[in-house]
Amino acid sequence: MKAVILGICPDARIVDITHGIPPGDIRAGAFALASATTYFPHGTVHVVVVDPGVGSSRPALGVQTANGFFVGPDNGVMSLALAREEVRQVRVLENSKYFLPGISRTFHGRDIFAPVAAHLSAGVLFSSLGRETPRYLKLDVPGPDQTPTGWRGEVLYIDRFGNAITNVQPDWSGFGQKCNQLQIRFGGRGRFRTMPLCECYQDVDPGSLLAIFGSAGYLEISANGGSAAEQLGLKVGTPFVLRMRA
Amino acid sequence: MKAVILGICPDARIVDITHGIPPGDIRAGAFALASATTYFPHGTVHVVVVDPGVGSSRPALGVQTANGFFVGPDNGVMSLALAREEVRQVRVLENSKYFLPGISRTFHGRDIFAPVAAHLSAGVLFSSLGRETPRYLKLDVPGPDQTPTGWRGEVLYIDRFGNAITNVQPDWSGFGQKCNQLQIRFGGRGRFRTMPLCECYQDVDPGSLLAIFGSAGYLEISANGGSAAEQLGLKVGTPFVLRMRA
Amino acid sequence: MKAVILGICPDARIVDITHGIPPGDIRAGAFALASATTYFPHGTVHVVVVDPGVGSSRPALGVQTANGFFVGPDNGVMSLALAREEVRQVRVLENSKYFLPGISRTFHGRDIFAPVAAHLSAGVLFSSLGRETPRYLKLDVPGPDQTPTGWRGEVLYIDRFGNAITNVQPDWSGFGQKCNQLQIRFGGRGRFRTMPLCECYQDVDPGSLLAIFGSAGYLEISANGGSAAEQLGLKVGTPFVLRMRA
Repeated sequence: MKAVILGICPDARIVDITHGIPPGDIRAGAFALASATTYFPHGTVHVVVVDPGVGSSRPALGVQTANGFFVGPDNGVMSLALAREEVRQVRVLENSKYFLPGISRTFHGRDIFAPVAAHLSAGVLFSSLGRETPRYLKLDVPGPDQTPTGWRGEVLYIDRFGNAITNVQPDWSGFGQKCNQLQIRFGGRGRFRTMPLCECYQDVDPGSLLAIFGSAGYLEISANGGSAAEQLGLKVGTPFVLRMRA
Repeated sequence: MKAVILGICPDARIVDITHGIPPGDIRAGAFALASATTYFPHGTVHVVVVDPGVGSSRPALGVQTANGFFVGPDNGVMSLALAREEVRQVRVLENSKYFLPGISRTFHGRDIFAPVAAHLSAGVLFSSLGRETPRYLKLDVPGPDQTPTGWRGEVLYIDRFGNAITNVQPDWSGFGQKCNQLQIRFGGRGRFRTMPLCECYQDVDPGSLLAIFGSAGYLEISANGGSAAEQLGLKVGTPFVLRMRA
Repeated sequence: MKAVILGICPDARIVDITHGIPPGDIRAGAFALASATTYFPHGTVHVVVVDPGVGSSRPALGVQTANGFFVGPDNGVMSLALAREEVRQVRVLENSKYFLPGISRTFHGRDIFAPVAAHLSAGVLFSSLGRETPRYLKLDVPGPDQTPTGWRGEVLYIDRFGNAITNVQPDWSGFGQKCNQLQIRFGGRGRFRTMPLCECYQDVDPGSLLAIFGSAGYLEISANGGSAAEQLGLKVGTPFVLRMRA
């Protein structure tokens, strides 16, 4: 993909967001993308290739926002990032003039998305990519539900340190004082575990569990110097019930 | 290596093809290289470091082709890519003026290949690198053998998704109609498995096996949303017998 | 981090040293950094983020040396590299003008180190980053102890090939002739294993153990085409006793 990009747009600056998305995990890809895109300079072209439906009837899309462009499959992987942007126009990638000659069945990242992104980067008009479409696939992102004593939610993402990122955000009632105790139960059964809401990992003993508002803006369950996901057997989508106590 | 390159040729654009080659796996490195090099712009210098014989008597080579340059060990890792190029000249890297001062025993990528590549990129004459040599080591790539009912071949590569890339190419008799059924037996014994020849992964149920002509131009054995290599216990070099049915 | 850097300093050349440091392993990070920094061009800004104490009271530092700059946490991760440099000035990163607005609790690499490094790269005065400090945390690097028959030392680092890098350097008495036999015992008990001191991995049979002075300038224990660390159960910090024989 990088070779193709540089062949079309020799001055392109290419940045890898991650190579660590589990194969075909659209939801993890969407989260990683949404966590990174707002930090890129104005005019960036984001190329997204978590594409288990490659070669099927799923369309390929280009999206113009107030900040730049997105190119990738219409499978929801771009939707969490786009929810944070002002979307201007969505187009179906149809103009094969901007594709590689000869499209493979299994790698549209190389054959369609990369060359289209490079052409956009080199100045091709967005309107020339294909017909406009009013819609794109949006992931059904679970919002946590408030309960009388806290929240019911689920794990959005597991990072490479084993931190489990939940869908609970900090601007909700019940949070605020340093090191409040939380009670949390994962997986819908079993006992509640008590852990402190901390300001940094080292507020607890090595290996101990804690909760912390992390760098993507969500409540994370972590272990100081260890993997909370491994300790607790957490995966993307694991549900939890959270109780807050002062 | 990148630091060394930028010190010699500050304007070099550096692209990693992969960091995922199993340690010392010359054949996997050769396949990954050959799959990528044709997509790079004219004049690219390819630096190749899968080098289990580092420090032994294996020569270090520079190769000039019609499209660019290759620099690396003479162990076959460059040979599959070179088979797709028009080779103009091969030279033994002998001119230590283009090496780092002080050559380590175990990392010629940093001490020899990277600086030579950077000097080439910066405009040094290819002919100044060392004496010409008429030969370089070529991997013995297994060609599949035709049988009365199909092909006998082997696995060339396993990618990070667990797709098993075979040495069977699409322009051979017996292929062509959508979703023909294939029968394939891996490992020289046991039963044949039937799977469809598909146009995309999602032509079969989640987790099911399929065959597909992949992005490197070979028949691949895949699982929709899973790892065929894991399901079937496949490795680089696993032999198979393939029968085709309409 | 790269997005942040390019937003502040669009012409920055960004090179990843490694993404393979085990989570929170300050000592492994320090070794990898020290092995690479001397190869970078004059004026390079090194940004270091192995930061298990993020958000705690550990300071963030900028260091100016004769060759360039270092930016990262004051936890020792920079100290092995700095021991090879002429340190000119150390400053505490306090001037939030050079931070991102809104500092997260868990990712100062993105919010503090990357933007400070980018500002340095773009020409901001080092003296404007914060007050000078006379000290920074230095890792306690184990020096090997000489014994009547050899050395007592420990494993500094395990690379991705499973080579175990020791703290024994080549300019010490007892080394020099090709393929001297070494006797080495790991872990403080059990039997001594005999292995040759080689010039290259292929001096021994496939899979066999050897000792070799490696590319970072230390004695390494390796297996030809295999993982010595796995064969011997070695980890960072594993102690050993080494006897030399002609």
